[in-house]
Amino acid sequence: MNYSNMSREQLEALKTELRAQYLAYVAEGLQLDLSRGKPGAHQLDMLSGILDVIATSDDCVSAAGDCRNYGVLDGIPEAKEMFSELYSIPTENIIVAGNSSLNLMYDAVARAMLYGVYGSARPWSKEDKISFLCPAPGYDRHFAICASLGINMIPVKMTETGPDMDEVERLISDPTVKGIWCCPKYSNPDGVTYSDETVRRFANLSPAAPDFRIFWDNAYAVHDIYEDRKDTLLDIFVEAKKTGKEDMIFYFASTSKISFPGSGVAILAASKNNLSQIKPIMSVQTIGFDKINQIRHVKYFKSADGIREHMKELADIIRPKFDIVLSTLDRELAPTGIARWTRPNGGYFVSLFVMKGCARRTYELCKNAGVVLTNVGATYPYGNDPDDSNIRIAPTYPSNEDLTEAMGVLVTCAKLAAVEKLLA
Amino acid sequence: MNYSNMSREQLEALKTELRAQYLAYVAEGLQLDLSRGKPGAHQLDMLSGILDVIATSDDCVSAAGDCRNYGVLDGIPEAKEMFSELYSIPTENIIVAGNSSLNLMYDAVARAMLYGVYGSARPWSKEDKISFLCPAPGYDRHFAICASLGINMIPVKMTETGPDMDEVERLISDPTVKGIWCCPKYSNPDGVTYSDETVRRFANLSPAAPDFRIFWDNAYAVHDIYEDRKDTLLDIFVEAKKTGKEDMIFYFASTSKISFPGSGVAILAASKNNLSQIKPIMSVQTIGFDKINQIRHVKYFKSADGIREHMKELADIIRPKFDIVLSTLDRELAPTGIARWTRPNGGYFVSLFVMKGCARRTYELCKNAGVVLTNVGATYPYGNDPDDSNIRIAPTYPSNEDLTEAMGVLVTCAKLAAVEKLLA
Repeated sequence: MNYSNMSREQLEALKTELRAQYLAYVAEGLQLDLSRGKPGAHQLDMLSGILDVIATSDDCVSAAGDCRNYGVLDGIPEAKEMFSELYSIPTENIIVAGNSSLNLMYDAVARAMLYGVYGSARPWSKEDKISFLCPAPGYDRHFAICASLGINMIPVKMTETGPDMDEVERLISDPTVKGIWCCPKYSNPDGVTYSDETVRRFANLSPAAPDFRIFWDNAYAVHDIYEDRKDTLLDIFVEAKKTGKEDMIFYFASTSKISFPGSGVAILAASKNNLSQIKPIMSVQTIGFDKINQIRHVKYFKSADGIREHMKELADIIRPKFDIVLSTLDRELAPTGIARWTRPNGGYFVSLFVMKGCARRTYELCKNAGVVLTNVGATYPYGNDPDDSNIRIAPTYPSNEDLTEAMGVLVTCAKLAAVEKLLA
Repeated sequence: MNYSNMSREQLEALKTELRAQYLAYVAEGLQLDLSRGKPGAHQLDMLSGILDVIATSDDCVSAAGDCRNYGVLDGIPEAKEMFSELYSIPTENIIVAGNSSLNLMYDAVARAMLYGVYGSARPWSKEDKISFLCPAPGYDRHFAICASLGINMIPVKMTETGPDMDEVERLISDPTVKGIWCCPKYSNPDGVTYSDETVRRFANLSPAAPDFRIFWDNAYAVHDIYEDRKDTLLDIFVEAKKTGKEDMIFYFASTSKISFPGSGVAILAASKNNLSQIKPIMSVQTIGFDKINQIRHVKYFKSADGIREHMKELADIIRPKFDIVLSTLDRELAPTGIARWTRPNGGYFVSLFVMKGCARRTYELCKNAGVVLTNVGATYPYGNDPDDSNIRIAPTYPSNEDLTEAMGVLVTCAKLAAVEKLLA
């Protein structure tokens, strides 16, 4: 029954019932975690072959020479080719780097602060004020980069087709707005893939700041879960080529959720102009990235198709976890009318919006029952969810059994928090 | 015969003779390289066992959990312990990071520019002027970091006991001086190890800038070549503890010339106060470094002693190369009186000082004869060797045969340039 149709008496009775359920969970002394956007051990075990694929000196020979020695700042050609095919980006626009796209993104912003970007009049740190648009809910680590570097964050509402583009187009008339964070496919946390129109509008932005950059974090580009309903993302570089605005895009991706998080390979892709500004600075920062790990990935996956096949196997592991999350929400929360949630076709997260003003309380109830959720507010700039409603559910790490148990706790807590609110 | 004692006629005759020798080299169409401070293939082949030491998921288990997954920003405990033993630094002062100490150094300076260091009144980029002391000859990539970030470089003369400490102590009374680059053991390029007195004077510096930092790049800490005459470097942290000035030190090292350049493991070591400022910023930059590569190094070397044993094997490969360089210089240049050179007990380089005003000409002659030298001037800030004298010889990469040939060319060119100069 929908909670909004309940009488006070009915709500009081429900509260008693939920409270009893909740205390039963508390008594179990659970230790469960729905907060971590990281693969589970089963996923990692699918990759064991990558560990010993490079075994001899001969295995380390790339077209660019001996991967065991110095050299080749922007990545070995074989890795560029594999990622070029995977992401449909020309090899000459790709830098194959180290183990972390987050590191590439931080460095891209830090570099802009210290030097500016291609086309900047001065380093961003010399501007009076720098602002970034932050579609929200979004990825907390994007926002942390801005917070750390003193960049003003302007939230933009996420919709079912991506960021509210009317807002984006309006806000970029402010010349202090130098960037926007985008997670365009299976977004973190909503699992939304930007619509064709959204991508086209991005490729056609006319910001007041001539050195405005779109930080296009395509972290979940090949992370389909349901074979029969995959999202497709329009190619931002192709669209930007049409408008002549390729310089506006900084593109990031990695194998963190393809191979091993922390031991994968990350890429930065950008226009020729951008790379002509970035590479000389990067060459001061490092002689080169770990080429043995690059060739390890190439020898193991062999091609973009090899990665795609591997992602199907991972999807078989992840799909049941998403099914557990969604079926629990459907069964337990749909009838109550107190919450809504996203139904992603891929990625790593489900975004749950509990009753307004109830996210923090739900988090606390869960915590006391031994279930850790992503910090409430983390998905918003400055940790400030104006509705106190969004909870990011990360189902990949726990076992299916633990996930089932944790979801049981979560829906009970969401209901209890809502009933408390309605009775308050 | 010493060239300075020669008559003009004798010099003319010598020039003719040297010119003939030189043209014979040119006619050979050589392609040799003495510029690259990188290991040769034989050195790398000694390491092949490291490639397959991690072969299964079980091999990836560290005391801090599964190295295949996210987590552990500052490095796995086993790696901290190994490097703690190797460098005599407490584990709690060590961050085990990615593949490049240069990257750690660049990031340390960039972070100082963006945020300041522990004890800074403001980010260094907000200061009117920042200066670094640059012992010279020194490592060109240190100087490149300063040049890239707009930091003023003040050269300090290198002596046989390290940087001229009278100069250092005098110059740090300038509050714009925020740092100094040091390569304290088997320095690049001189191969000098700082004397005990030099280290103690470093540990006792009283700079005008409260946020002055010593960038202690201990790149060749365990890179002895001659078992019977190893240098020992006083422990800067131990000395700084006595003076209460540990916060003044940023310490760097890596396995780039122990395991594989570009696929090794780098460390940053610093005081508790410094790490309390660095780690939170680093945690915004990355979730963590490549822990599989860290455990790969631990499983292969097993301990600091394992690394020391390995370095003995590498020394057996490198020693003949140093012998070729030094015996050629002794035989060919010592009698001429036109040059001096260093006799390092370890490290990667020999520093040759040709007749004043002759380094550039020697470089050009070598180049035309197919022998590439390190860019003349590269070992000085702004590429400016005031004496036009220093040439960095990097003997590790070529085969012994190629090295012998290249050294023959080099000494001929050095002689010819000197004779030309004397006759001019």
